[in-house]
Amino acid sequence: MSGFVTFISAGPGDPELLTVKGAARLREADVVLYDDLASGAILDLARPGANLVAVGKRAGRPSTKQHHVNRLLVDYAATGSRVVRLKSGDAGIFGRLEEEIETLRDAGIGYEIIPGVTSACVAAAQAGIPLTRRHTSRRVQFVTGADVTGDLPQNLNWAALADPEATTVVYMGRRTFPALAAKLIEHGLAPGTPALLAESLGRSDERLVRTTIAELAEQLARGGAASTAAVILFGALAGEYPS
Amino acid sequence: MSGFVTFISAGPGDPELLTVKGAARLREADVVLYDDLASGAILDLARPGANLVAVGKRAGRPSTKQHHVNRLLVDYAATGSRVVRLKSGDAGIFGRLEEEIETLRDAGIGYEIIPGVTSACVAAAQAGIPLTRRHTSRRVQFVTGADVTGDLPQNLNWAALADPEATTVVYMGRRTFPALAAKLIEHGLAPGTPALLAESLGRSDERLVRTTIAELAEQLARGGAASTAAVILFGALAGEYPS
Repeated sequence: MSGFVTFISAGPGDPELLTVKGAARLREADVVLYDDLASGAILDLARPGANLVAVGKRAGRPSTKQHHVNRLLVDYAATGSRVVRLKSGDAGIFGRLEEEIETLRDAGIGYEIIPGVTSACVAAAQAGIPLTRRHTSRRVQFVTGADVTGDLPQNLNWAALADPEATTVVYMGRRTFPALAAKLIEHGLAPGTPALLAESLGRSDERLVRTTIAELAEQLARGGAASTAAVILFGALAGEYPS
Repeated sequence: MSGFVTFISAGPGDPELLTVKGAARLREADVVLYDDLASGAILDLARPGANLVAVGKRAGRPSTKQHHVNRLLVDYAATGSRVVRLKSGDAGIFGRLEEEIETLRDAGIGYEIIPGVTSACVAAAQAGIPLTRRHTSRRVQFVTGADVTGDLPQNLNWAALADPEATTVVYMGRRTFPALAAKLIEHGLAPGTPALLAESLGRSDERLVRTTIAELAEQLARGGAASTAAVILFGALAGEYPS
């Protein structure tokens, strides 16, 4: 089988934070398969007449959804169309890219990946801080706060995450952060470790909250189920350079 | 004092992997302070007549160089010029951004940071692999292989780095990788752990080599002093989807 799929990393949602190459490929696409988070203003870049197909994973059973996306990718690619798969952030970071790559490889369909700006970098930039610092913050790590069922993943490397000399960014971790923070504190991370909650990055309702891991956990435990996309950054740098 | 500085994340060097916003700000700049790695074709985006100032840190004593960059930033901003500080990759990741931010804050000069595509994301995209995978690779971490003197930093969190369930990317780590690999193996990481060396990302002489941590360490120890910029990615995903 022939056909080809371009995975485009959409960044946080602001079309200005798409790469020049991603924007160009999006304008050339015949078919664009997009998630909820990689939608909005970015889709306006597609040419008039392009087939825009929503494949959001937020609703429904995740496994069914992924199976459906996989089938659409193969079916559209098989028609010879220029197929773009638009993924939020950097496609390679918590984008479940492996499942779609494996489907394409099994079907003998070629692909390319256009890298992009991951949410951790956007959150830090918006807060005016770097993610690393000489001597004191020489390791930066990203982790997902939700497994496929939405719960905190079991058997994460708690010691690595509780390292006070790292900068850590939790993706999809708002709901499970109280449980994660409890684990971190149990493994020795100070409750007063600076934390930054970044909501709706790159959108008009963007909001940054600077706090500590213990206070954020308490606040999120009280706050109930907010559906806004968010990343949580913690470590010494999260408390630096308040404006 | 007034004045303003825009930190632009240049990405790996390919102008196509700059963000739309970064490219726009670069075109508007009066003064562009750039490093060796964020040069080349990207500088062609600046307007004719813009003042392009090389402040590469490769040569000379690092502390003197940084002091010099700091002074130039403040002096140019004080003239009221639109000053861009161009940094390779994402400015917040191993870009020594904190030193320049602190200088600007001390001088009362405002700044913004435009995030960008960090080399880890480019290396993975070019290799056709993601940096994370459900269940098996839920943590991704970036670390620097060189402190300010060029040596392997002491007291890195070896256990976190030797975790077989993480994907790890080492920046500026070519020269010290033999020493790092020895530490990782001593802390339990299998010598056969897949590794990917990515050289000259985003440039015409880009080269990807797939190997293992032990073989790469041996090869780099034998190879002598190459000056090409490189990142090293290791973990299970580094061995996936060979083309």
